[in-house]
Order: sequence, then C-alpha cells, then structure tokens
Amino acid sequence: MNNKKPVGIIGAGSFGTAIAGLLAKNNDVLIFSRRKEAVEQINKKHVNYGAILPDNVVATDNLEAITQQCDLIFPIIPSSAFRKTMRSMAPFLQPSHILIHGTKGFDTGDVTDEMLGKTSLSRREVHTMSEVIVQETVCLRVGCLSGPNLAKEIIAGQPTAAVVASRFKEVFTVGKEALTSDQFHIFASDDLLGAELSGALKNIIALGSGMLGGMGLGRNIQAMLITRGLTEMLYFGKAIGATNDAFFGTAGIGDLVATATSTSSRNYSFGEKIAQGMTLEQINAIMPETAEGVRTLQIAKQLAKHYKIRVPITEMLYKVVFDGLDVHKALHFLITYPYDKDVDFR
Amino acid sequence: MNNKKPVGIIGAGSFGTAIAGLLAKNNDVLIFSRRKEAVEQINKKHVNYGAILPDNVVATDNLEAITQQCDLIFPIIPSSAFRKTMRSMAPFLQPSHILIHGTKGFDTGDVTDEMLGKTSLSRREVHTMSEVIVQETVCLRVGCLSGPNLAKEIIAGQPTAAVVASRFKEVFTVGKEALTSDQFHIFASDDLLGAELSGALKNIIALGSGMLGGMGLGRNIQAMLITRGLTEMLYFGKAIGATNDAFFGTAGIGDLVATATSTSSRNYSFGEKIAQGMTLEQINAIMPETAEGVRTLQIAKQLAKHYKIRVPITEMLYKVVFDGLDVHKALHFLITYPYDKDVDFR
Repeated sequence: MNNKKPVGIIGAGSFGTAIAGLLAKNNDVLIFSRRKEAVEQINKKHVNYGAILPDNVVATDNLEAITQQCDLIFPIIPSSAFRKTMRSMAPFLQPSHILIHGTKGFDTGDVTDEMLGKTSLSRREVHTMSEVIVQETVCLRVGCLSGPNLAKEIIAGQPTAAVVASRFKEVFTVGKEALTSDQFHIFASDDLLGAELSGALKNIIALGSGMLGGMGLGRNIQAMLITRGLTEMLYFGKAIGATNDAFFGTAGIGDLVATATSTSSRNYSFGEKIAQGMTLEQINAIMPETAEGVRTLQIAKQLAKHYKIRVPITEMLYKVVFDGLDVHKALHFLITYPYDKDVDFR
Repeated sequence: MNNKKPVGIIGAGSFGTAIAGLLAKNNDVLIFSRRKEAVEQINKKHVNYGAILPDNVVATDNLEAITQQCDLIFPIIPSSAFRKTMRSMAPFLQPSHILIHGTKGFDTGDVTDEMLGKTSLSRREVHTMSEVIVQETVCLRVGCLSGPNLAKEIIAGQPTAAVVASRFKEVFTVGKEALTSDQFHIFASDDLLGAELSGALKNIIALGSGMLGGMGLGRNIQAMLITRGLTEMLYFGKAIGATNDAFFGTAGIGDLVATATSTSSRNYSFGEKIAQGMTLEQINAIMPETAEGVRTLQIAKQLAKHYKIRVPITEMLYKVVFDGLDVHKALHFLITYPYDKDVDFR
C-alpha cells in the first residue's frame, strides 16, 4: 500500500489499542503484547478491548521485530513494568529510534512496588518514563503523548486532542504526522517534564473525584477538588523543577478534567469503589487493568514528605486508600481546612 | 434569636435561593423579589426553586426595607437587569453598605440588549457588575462571589466552595463570616476583575460543552474545549487588563469545570438544545431562567473584534447560535484548526 515503515506500539492494553486505531489511519501499525492470546486475537479476529482494528494493525510478541521494522515506537505500558521492558528492548534500539511514550506514572528505580510506602523517596529515586528511556537505552529523541484520552471514547470513534511533548522539535513533527486526523488534533509542547508530571499526578485527583462520585456528590465539589488538586500538582511540579506551563494545557487541565469527571476512567472507578466500602485488595482483585493513581499516590506521599510540600488532598487520599480513613471524615477535614487564599502559585 | 442584622439578597432566582439557604445557617436573611408570587411563596410556604427554606429567611418586595435592615447585601440578578436594579437601590444605599454580587455576566451601559450584535463594543461600553455598583451607588466596598456553585446541588445540601473577591480585605472577612459552614468553604482573592471576567466568560464555554453533549460526544472533547476555552478566557482577560490569577482558581477553573460538565447548568442545557436542532427563539420560549452565556457570547464576540483577539471557539459558537452554522461543521473547523502550540499565555 505504501512504502513507509510501520509505527510500533509496545503494550496492547486499552490505551495502546486506542492509539493503534488512530495510528492505523495514517500508517501500518505493529503492536507488541507479551500475552499470546492478545496477539492471536488481534491478528485473527482483529478485535481488542472492544475495538475493531483494521487489517493494517498487526500484533507480535517479538520485541526485536518491532525495533527492526519501526523507527517510531510508542511504549504504552504500566509504569511498574516500564523500566523492565526498556531493558528488554535496549539491545535492539538504535540512536535513530524515536520513542514517544503514553504511560502516566512514575518509575522508582530499585525501590520495588512492595517497598513503596515503607521507604522515603526523593527525586533521586523517582523518574519519569522519558528519563527511564534515556537511562536504559541509547535513544535520546524521546517524548510523551498526553491529553484527555479516555480509551473507550477514542475506540468509539469520538474526536479529541493530545499534546506531544519533547525537547526535540523533530519528535513533535514525526508524532504529529503519524497521529493527526480529523478525529485527533496534536498540540506541541517543549515542557516534557511538566507534561509527564501532570499526566501522572492527575490520576491521584481522579481517585478522589471518583470517591466523591461514589458518595453520591455532584459536580460542584468535584470541580473544587479538580481546582485545588491542580494547585497541589503545581506544588509538586515546582518542587521537582518543572514550569507551570504543561499543567495549564492539554496534558494538565485537559487530561485532569476528562479523567476526574468520567466514570469510564479506571482511576475514577477505583475511587468510586473505595467510597462504596471496598478495600484496596478487593478492588485490585476485580479490576482488569491497574489504576496507576494508586501507585502514584504512594510515590507522591513520599515526595511531599521529602520536599515538605503542603498537600492536604494528597494526604487525605492516602489515608483513605491505605489507612482506611472514612471518606466522609476526609471530606469534612478538607472542607474545613484552614486555607484562605485562592491562588498562590505563580 | 440574635442581635446581628439580617443579611440581604437581591433576587430570588435559583442561585439567590441557594445562597439564602447557606446564609440562613449563620444569619437571618431578607430576600428581595419583585415578583409578588415569589415573595408570598417564600413567606407562606417556605419553598422556592425546590429549596425548603428555614423560617429565618423572609422575602420582601421592598428594596428600601432591605437597605435599611441590612449592612451586607448580595445582589444576585440577571446581568441585563443589574444596572436598573442598582439605580433603584441607589437612593437608599449608604457608604457603610457592603455589596457582594453573584451575577456572572456583563453590563453594556447604554447599549440595549436589542442593539447587541449590531454595534461594536469596547471596554468603554462593557462593565463588570462591581463597576456598575460603583458607578450607580455611593458604595465602594464591593466584591463578588464566584465558584463551582450549581444551585441545584447547593439546594440539595451538597458541599462546595466559592471565592469572595474584593480589593477590600474587610469585604472578604464579612462575606466569609456570613457564608462559611461545613457545607461551604470560602476562599479569598484580591483579583476582583479576574474573578468577574472568568465567571462571565466561562458561560460561553459551557454553551459549547452542552453542544458537544447534545451531539452525543463524551468527556475527552469536552475536556479539550474546557482547556482551549480557558486559553481564550485568558486572552480576553489580558486584553481587558486582568491578571491570570483568578482564572486558575475557584472562580475560574472551578466554576468552568462544574458548569461545563453538568447537565444541571442552564448554559450547558442551552447548548444541548441547540445541538438537538432547536433555535435560539424556541429555547428562550421554554427556559425558565436566562442562560447568561448567550448574552455574554454576543458581547465577547464584539470585544474580540475590537481587541483583535484570536478566539476561534468563541467565533464558532457565535456562528452556531446566531448564524445557524451546523454544530458538526463548527467542531470539524476547530479540530482541524491550525494551532500547534499547547500553552502560549504566561
């Protein structure tokens, strides 16, 4: 059909599948999954996560094949598996590869998931996904894809937009060309760190918004949580060294609003279930994909402690999810919290 | 019961009624309506807009009585009637009165509603409500109340927050004391102009978000509209001379998110009906209260022209509401609009 190289995706979860559908409008697509059933299902039945995928989306369980056939690769895998996957790919990657990830969480280096919450974390242990790529591979031209991109809506063919953030203009140009269609607008940003931080941190707020929804409360208080939650996200950004820019754009407010007001977001659903009285273990047992926000909440808690940031929403959510604090008590604490000033970041 | 003076409210619409319920927790309340039926209903049946009001909320149709009995007064009336009402109150007001309005729209001085859309407008003709109060009365200690305050949810007893914005600390202190409860948190801001602008302009974005909802679209694209809409609101603010602060806080993002994601917002409902094929005239004929966003859209259109601001969302919404442009064509125009940069305000 055309002589362009196919575009690669690492990870065939719901978001990877949604992006496969968008990429397939402009490119042949090669999608990696380590699950043989997923590979077979995509190649034989052309379906995954409710999406009907066109013939030019081909699945493989061979990482090396993807790196050989594709110059542009989108890693879209859970943050907890990101570093390991990059290590597996590293021997096959060349400096000529461009990697744009779509993972919204943090890596914690040698600190395993079991140790999270038991050990203090500073910026030394906490890495964004683009930092992991640079640490583990020879690739330098990296970026991230972020925005209000609920997989279910994209799979249903609904329009939206995203930002490709990178320090390299070329990464944006290549990403835009691969993804742009009348269903998907691509914005550019050079604030990679800000885009990654806001993409990860917003999941914490989505957990909280889901709790409010699960308590039967409405948009007023969810909008307040989003507003004050954004403020806490900005505090984290400042402590870690990002500018405010990305937080106010597509990867910040855009992603935050979609995730924190939609029942089809995983993190929102997780919060709803907590408010309905389920425990962390019970929810994990029934949810098909990880709610990244839970892991990010553990990491953010430690970062706040290390940097001495005043983030009462993050603190309360941590207590609700991990220490069994009643959601009504947490809400009462926040509503009566003695802060007066509306906007104090600049 | 207590010797404090009652707090006054001008206007017994749904939001005025919601605020009456909140104020009644801490104060006796005197609420003005020019409609005799509303006054009777409140005083005899203690109900209005679905709210059951306590005995310490008393209605009157006598403006002079309110100004005599109350030092603190909340004008909460449609923007198109604001100046006229202030003129009627002016003879009874003293410099000692504190006025905190809850109206989210613009005044256009001598330019009548019939002339809107037919005449150009600059900052000379366009005034905020606090400016109208200062122009028409002897009062200087003015402020506004703004935030994610969907009346229906407040009336249902759900918690939320708002900002009292004023150049006078005293206005904030008095407003906070009157309104604070475990249902309602009050933040302070000295950015009165920004709070008024964002409160008014956000209704335009709510119209658009309602249209997307009426087209059957979901949260992704609504979140994008909110993100880019906020950018346009900031452009207007910059042209008119406000700082960015309030736009990022309770009166900005907070109010915007609640109004633009809730079907119980009037402006959202208006947009939904437009997308379903109803005309402006048909909707006006059936809606019990004005959607302020429609009037604000006409004013914003002229301001954008005058100040030469690039606001494609505002332009498209104007064409849909007033020139009968098809909503799908407007959406396609915006999705394929050639803007690349994610965040370009600072």
